[in-house]
Amino acid sequence: MPYITIEPYGIKVEAKKGATLYQVLRKTHIDITSICGGFGLCGKCRVIIVKGHKSLSKVIENEKRFLTDEDFLNGYRLACQAKIIGDEDIVVLVPPESRAKVGERKAVVEGYMRPVTLRPAIKKIKAVLAPSTLHDQRADFERLLDYLRNEYGLEDLDIDIEALRMLPHVIRESEQFSTVVLWNEREIIAIEPGDTTDHNYGVSIDIGTSKIVAHLVNLNNGKVIATAFVENPQLSHGEDIISRITFASSSRDNALSLHKLLIDSVNELVTGLCRYANVNPKNVYEIVVVGNTAMHHFFLNLETLFVAKAPYVPVISKSISVKARELGLRINRSAIVTVLPVIGGFVGADAVANALAVDIINSRDPAVLIDIGTNTEIFVGNSNLLVTGSAPSGPAFEGARITFGMKAVNGAIESVKIRENGEVEYDVIGDIKPRGIAGSAMIDIVAELYRNKFIDARGNFKRDLNLKRLRRNRFGYEFVIAWANETAIGRDIVVSEKDIKEIILAKAAIFAGFSVLMKRRELKYTDISTLFIAGSFGSHINLHNAISIGLLPPLPLNKIKFVGNTAIAGADLALISTELREEAEKIAKIVKYIELSADPLFKEEFINALWIPHRKLQFDIR
Amino acid sequence: MPYITIEPYGIKVEAKKGATLYQVLRKTHIDITSICGGFGLCGKCRVIIVKGHKSLSKVIENEKRFLTDEDFLNGYRLACQAKIIGDEDIVVLVPPESRAKVGERKAVVEGYMRPVTLRPAIKKIKAVLAPSTLHDQRADFERLLDYLRNEYGLEDLDIDIEALRMLPHVIRESEQFSTVVLWNEREIIAIEPGDTTDHNYGVSIDIGTSKIVAHLVNLNNGKVIATAFVENPQLSHGEDIISRITFASSSRDNALSLHKLLIDSVNELVTGLCRYANVNPKNVYEIVVVGNTAMHHFFLNLETLFVAKAPYVPVISKSISVKARELGLRINRSAIVTVLPVIGGFVGADAVANALAVDIINSRDPAVLIDIGTNTEIFVGNSNLLVTGSAPSGPAFEGARITFGMKAVNGAIESVKIRENGEVEYDVIGDIKPRGIAGSAMIDIVAELYRNKFIDARGNFKRDLNLKRLRRNRFGYEFVIAWANETAIGRDIVVSEKDIKEIILAKAAIFAGFSVLMKRRELKYTDISTLFIAGSFGSHINLHNAISIGLLPPLPLNKIKFVGNTAIAGADLALISTELREEAEKIAKIVKYIELSADPLFKEEFINALWIPHRKLQFDIR
Repeated sequence: MPYITIEPYGIKVEAKKGATLYQVLRKTHIDITSICGGFGLCGKCRVIIVKGHKSLSKVIENEKRFLTDEDFLNGYRLACQAKIIGDEDIVVLVPPESRAKVGERKAVVEGYMRPVTLRPAIKKIKAVLAPSTLHDQRADFERLLDYLRNEYGLEDLDIDIEALRMLPHVIRESEQFSTVVLWNEREIIAIEPGDTTDHNYGVSIDIGTSKIVAHLVNLNNGKVIATAFVENPQLSHGEDIISRITFASSSRDNALSLHKLLIDSVNELVTGLCRYANVNPKNVYEIVVVGNTAMHHFFLNLETLFVAKAPYVPVISKSISVKARELGLRINRSAIVTVLPVIGGFVGADAVANALAVDIINSRDPAVLIDIGTNTEIFVGNSNLLVTGSAPSGPAFEGARITFGMKAVNGAIESVKIRENGEVEYDVIGDIKPRGIAGSAMIDIVAELYRNKFIDARGNFKRDLNLKRLRRNRFGYEFVIAWANETAIGRDIVVSEKDIKEIILAKAAIFAGFSVLMKRRELKYTDISTLFIAGSFGSHINLHNAISIGLLPPLPLNKIKFVGNTAIAGADLALISTELREEAEKIAKIVKYIELSADPLFKEEFINALWIPHRKLQFDIR
Repeated sequence: MPYITIEPYGIKVEAKKGATLYQVLRKTHIDITSICGGFGLCGKCRVIIVKGHKSLSKVIENEKRFLTDEDFLNGYRLACQAKIIGDEDIVVLVPPESRAKVGERKAVVEGYMRPVTLRPAIKKIKAVLAPSTLHDQRADFERLLDYLRNEYGLEDLDIDIEALRMLPHVIRESEQFSTVVLWNEREIIAIEPGDTTDHNYGVSIDIGTSKIVAHLVNLNNGKVIATAFVENPQLSHGEDIISRITFASSSRDNALSLHKLLIDSVNELVTGLCRYANVNPKNVYEIVVVGNTAMHHFFLNLETLFVAKAPYVPVISKSISVKARELGLRINRSAIVTVLPVIGGFVGADAVANALAVDIINSRDPAVLIDIGTNTEIFVGNSNLLVTGSAPSGPAFEGARITFGMKAVNGAIESVKIRENGEVEYDVIGDIKPRGIAGSAMIDIVAELYRNKFIDARGNFKRDLNLKRLRRNRFGYEFVIAWANETAIGRDIVVSEKDIKEIILAKAAIFAGFSVLMKRRELKYTDISTLFIAGSFGSHINLHNAISIGLLPPLPLNKIKFVGNTAIAGADLALISTELREEAEKIAKIVKYIELSADPLFKEEFINALWIPHRKLQFDIR
């Protein structure tokens, strides 16, 4: 078996024949960029073979789709296509543009938070139990029940078996007080010696496809006291949900491993939060979880296959609560995990949390809520009637299928201005040399190219231009955003006509979804009181440009509100308010889900939206 | 380390120095008789050292309490007192009288069964779900809920997470039907492809201190289709409850090991029953468990210490249901274990089951229910008012503290007649040579000795008798029941004056308990319509003799009913009828528990009952 040295990390490993370089890198925990999860579909896992070409399988046709002749001359290969076949040692360099990393840029984890009355499901109350005697031989539990009935008017309480196991010790150890931990005024989930009412915590979690965000919340005042996030560890099985579901559905073990990855991450997050805030994990009594339907299912270890296959049906819609120990979560032994409801295969608990956070269900005036992602969840309506749907916008805004596309992390160009003379100004996250282009900048680029009339309404570069930055390569026209010498990758960072069309496809899907939902809800633009833009991507876009390319409807800017990560905010709300938890349930129940892929109007509107900003729509935008 | 050869088994093992022979025998799974669990208190673990005396610790004073000089000459030692100290190999013979074995005698496991309407908590119903489409995208669970609401009027059903995990597969695999398994019309605990309504089973279990009895029940007709019992494996930690609780309370690991022994036994029993009846354990959906309060607590892994210490308080009184998987029981993954309620530290779920089986709570006329054991639980009353208490009768009827006492297994003398001339006739269980005397025969012996005026009302042998079988040993008088040559042990089987007094102590405790409860319930003998005698011991006693020694009150024999193992019968009833399950709950709630040990009248009545049949009692027996 040959040795593989991985630069610039200086890691040397022995590698089995038959493995791909991608597999070797993943196994060594090198975070190489990949959207497809190693299936040769995204072309992102570019590596440079410094030595040992002979030990690798030959270049195949597929790689030529992503690599130019010059790339091959420079030693480039796709890591997922290069298999180890020989015994000669290999030296492989992972170039900057292929190094995935959650950047240092501040994640939008705060979120928009509506006012709320503190009423968590977890309640700690003190109990003072008279000792048993030969004249009062009530069992420990019945003694406690009688006390809770007399002092607090609580009836019909259950007790968790683990709490019951602690009960005799605790009430005998306690000098004066014991502290009873109640869930939903229905079940005693713990009993602790002394007065522990000050130590009362919960955790809210948003499991995103690429990132897991967690808040540690003091349940006595509803305040978030620590926040943390990690990359979703399932990324090693593909950046997109479909790859992961495909992986999971191939064997029970695969499905279980994806489930366990989430559980392990949540355990790590909670442990980290508790350590940071000096909280004993035993004092964490509830976790509220949101996430898209696939993540929701993976987290609960439910079958995900049918979420991804028409007719896109989840296993369960309503909220569900299970014991933390049943899922292997390491907090209080009897703690509860409550997962918020989902609406459909592509409108998950995160979307419900979004809707909860902006309080759209109680809105008198019609409002719109958009969370842009690979699937863009849109709510339209008010307290009378709320409709929702998911537009298949694809991963273009997250960098996939865009030549130099990347996530909004360090080194990504996040905003761009293009002058009339074709000159370019850009800002880079982290103020370093750029490695690629973030989705927000792609919107700017398309808007500016169109404003300057460098492209037409279909996204084609005009043929009569004489611009230094515009050139033709073997695939078509491309426009240089950053010259090689300005970049961290030593190559020109360009936008191709194909890239522009990917952006138009993505914005068209979103706009068509919005348009269909407005139509089904029988609303006009002028009816909209507020357009909420949720999610971290939305928070970084230039509204003016987003409107001018037809991604967003042409509303007065003062009607548009960036609300940030409302998914975690909604989870926070459900954690600290049983009332809002019921409201989440209500949202999932009463909202009218419209399957856009099955709505004939959607295709029509989509085609009309493939123009910049769009062609005459069925739904009149004026 | 020396080798130890164990005869007559021919087993040769290496033994660590410091271990006792008792420990070596237990480890080798030799079932040696012991009541105290190896603490030198019962003198039952007699073994003969054939070779290797020098490798064993010296005889200590304690052993001399149990072994005669002749015994020592014959090589006898108490296995629990003989420690291995030397290197010379040892040969030890376990004589017949020291071989414990649950006999082949038919256990009383059938029990008395009141009429009952079949209404188990487990219900299997068929579901026919239309497949989901793009126009009906309800989640699988919501689709099922809607169906169950429309077809069966079932509302607000929960679903077990394991059932939820099966749901999407089952409803898609099923050609026409799925079968839904409901618990208490409240929770869906399983869903199975096809029509499985024919396969619907439950198990009822009575965990006794020395024996665990289990019934496999067809929940579709309420019939017991297989029965099995095993020795309680905790016996290796002492025959009596207090030894086990002492062991358990010395460390968390000890407590856990006693819990696990029960769980393992229940698993074995259930597996065996299922194999015998050709039932898939996956089709066992509920287990109903009864047992005394200590066994109840051990089974649930609850602290037992406070059950055994004044004021004898259980951890929980009311019935409790937990998932079988939480206890490690290997039946259906989502099956439920329901443990019937207990009344107090010494009136457990078995006593509740007894009361349930004979329906004393609905009796118009006052009735009495007695279950004789180490603690004798007694119920007195009717539907107006029911009182209960536990008399500390001790283990004498089970053979402990009686020179040749043994359980009612093969080789035990079970009944005895003594003629005026002092000659003896006896019956032996299994029609083999006797090894000892069962409790039922001890009652006969005391009654017959008294009737023949060989003993006085205090149990002392009269001094002026000239009987071949009566003789004086170094401890006092003894009466030979079987001569050495008639026995399997080659020694005279005798009854000593001390043995007779042990029986009087035991019967006095029972009668005093009964007497106090009658008084507290303000009843006279003549008020009693029926005296139910429950339990396997009770079923084998000679009523006439039991009355004549003052163990039972002098009622007309037609008012006395042997009802057998009503504990398991009560468990059966609770398994097949939710109505009776509620009644069990009601019994535990409304019955008035009287702590006999704290009742001043009890001591008084106890002293009066130390006569045969008794001295003038506070409670007038006429």
